[in-house]
Amino acid sequence: MAAAAKDTGAEATGQARVTIRQVAVHAGVSEAAVSYALNNRPGVSEQTRARVLAAARDLGWAPNIAARSLGTAKANAVGLVLVRPPRVMIVDSWFTQMLSGVEAELNRNDIALVLHLVDRIEDTIDVYRKWWAGRHVDGVILTDLRKDDPRLDALVEIGLPAAVIGGKPGLDGCSTVDADVAGTARAIVGYLRALGHRTIARVAGTEELFHTGQRDAAYLDALDHAGLDRDRYRVVYTNYSAVDGMRAMRELMSGAEPPTAVVFDNDVMAAASLKVAHEMGLSVPEDVSVVAWDDSDLCQITVPAITAVQQTPALQAELAARALLATINGGEISHVTLQPGTLTARQSTRPLRAGRTS
Amino acid sequence: MAAAAKDTGAEATGQARVTIRQVAVHAGVSEAAVSYALNNRPGVSEQTRARVLAAARDLGWAPNIAARSLGTAKANAVGLVLVRPPRVMIVDSWFTQMLSGVEAELNRNDIALVLHLVDRIEDTIDVYRKWWAGRHVDGVILTDLRKDDPRLDALVEIGLPAAVIGGKPGLDGCSTVDADVAGTARAIVGYLRALGHRTIARVAGTEELFHTGQRDAAYLDALDHAGLDRDRYRVVYTNYSAVDGMRAMRELMSGAEPPTAVVFDNDVMAAASLKVAHEMGLSVPEDVSVVAWDDSDLCQITVPAITAVQQTPALQAELAARALLATINGGEISHVTLQPGTLTARQSTRPLRAGRTS
Repeated sequence: MAAAAKDTGAEATGQARVTIRQVAVHAGVSEAAVSYALNNRPGVSEQTRARVLAAARDLGWAPNIAARSLGTAKANAVGLVLVRPPRVMIVDSWFTQMLSGVEAELNRNDIALVLHLVDRIEDTIDVYRKWWAGRHVDGVILTDLRKDDPRLDALVEIGLPAAVIGGKPGLDGCSTVDADVAGTARAIVGYLRALGHRTIARVAGTEELFHTGQRDAAYLDALDHAGLDRDRYRVVYTNYSAVDGMRAMRELMSGAEPPTAVVFDNDVMAAASLKVAHEMGLSVPEDVSVVAWDDSDLCQITVPAITAVQQTPALQAELAARALLATINGGEISHVTLQPGTLTARQSTRPLRAGRTS
Repeated sequence: MAAAAKDTGAEATGQARVTIRQVAVHAGVSEAAVSYALNNRPGVSEQTRARVLAAARDLGWAPNIAARSLGTAKANAVGLVLVRPPRVMIVDSWFTQMLSGVEAELNRNDIALVLHLVDRIEDTIDVYRKWWAGRHVDGVILTDLRKDDPRLDALVEIGLPAAVIGGKPGLDGCSTVDADVAGTARAIVGYLRALGHRTIARVAGTEELFHTGQRDAAYLDALDHAGLDRDRYRVVYTNYSAVDGMRAMRELMSGAEPPTAVVFDNDVMAAASLKVAHEMGLSVPEDVSVVAWDDSDLCQITVPAITAVQQTPALQAELAARALLATINGGEISHVTLQPGTLTARQSTRPLRAGRTS
């Protein structure tokens, strides 16, 4: 190892250290691919690996001896770092379903899950470094991607195999398993359009999350697709909690032109909105229809029961864990999109009544 | 180490191996105390340790060389094995609150949590053995104790430090942090008694769990304490799910003498019972009062909002994690009981109306 480093000569001769970015540009591949290839980790094809190694040789890149000398003994463990307060941990069942799916796949392979909560997303990166340096985990699963997420570049730099529950175009350093956000939004808007609704509002989740942005775009696309006027569509962002969902519902229904249908980014807020309707003397669905993005027991025990789109977080998480294990075992990065969610119509939606202006 | 083992002579001379039980009887302490003392683990006082070592010497006990030679390097990790399907993972927020509490304490001490799901409770023990043999964890947290729980004896035998979220009299091998089950039952029954209710039914959780048995006893005690007739009290056991809670509510309200108040072992079943009342043409609280053992957002977003007793699973879990870390760091086993839950009266309970026979 030491001899190999000396051969490249970059540090020994006092030259400026060659960066991964330079190697990536020279090889015409992503930084992630360079990182995997140079760290001798799976996740890139043999052709890419050869191209990267040639570029690294050309530029005189010096490997990081300390990192490589740790060897390749597997930890048989996968890591998951959540940022506190994780939106998902108290307010809805997404977290438990996700965890159940990850564990289903890990258990089949006798792999443990190491869980860590941190206060700031930046702290995640320190945990990743420590885990990888000590080979406490063989890879990590990411969730709740931010619009501008510092973990992604860090993973590339660290060279830690990763899979994302969710997706983001251009992520070539991690496997991704994404929901069909566009298809789900079209299913919801198309159904409401068929019932005669023209003024639709949305109670959205946390604005800084990447998937909230995905849904923002998906709903606009769905409105266009259904021939509805974007100007009549309103969005209120929340933190996904029942209390915040109620605040948003009050705000929407107190406007000069209240919507005839409100779609919610989770089941808890949709359920909580029924209480606001009750409190404001409005009937669901006579005065306003309600749809939840996630289906759950909760949507079935409310009166009225809530029309909802079934998502499959357990499956999504299971497939992400499977993709990660494949990468760890020498396979390549993969990108999967699930089928769109299935809409189950219940009592919270109805055709817009005749005579009512929408 | 090898010399020390030879000195004791037990195995070398072909004598029957001295068991931990024999040492415990000789020393007049528990098997757990012997296990801790002989494995040089914290969790017992110095006096007890000395007594155990003297007894072991007297009997010619041979230490398990393989286990001891692994040394005392800490893993800086704590383990949690859950049995699939964990009742708590889909149906209510108990699991996420518990996990949040455990992590709060572990994070402060820079300790990771290793999570594993197994299909059968017996499989837990294999995981414990593997974890402890490889020092993958320094201790474990147990939850959802069964009435007859095979993990407890195994922990004693393995010598793995442990803390239980929950409690069980006579557990001297683990720290415990228990809710005040008796106090909570008295708060609920006392309140309903004060409102004039005499015929109370309970929709209970999973019968095989130890804490379901604790509540069985606590409610009987509370009825006696309130001067109510045990013969008018009915219990229906469930699996904690909304669907099973609804089945139980239907069963209770279809009887010849339906209760005037129903208490539920969790919030999800209490919320689901409102739908059954609606479906049966009954009013809550006019025809029947409803109380939930756990409070949550859910109890506040239903119509009517549900009278509930606030439990503190996050605090309970945090204290259990703290007790475990104390044991790992040389402290002794401890047993804590939390304050009883606080009852918040909402719209789902009311005084029994005049003229109605109870």
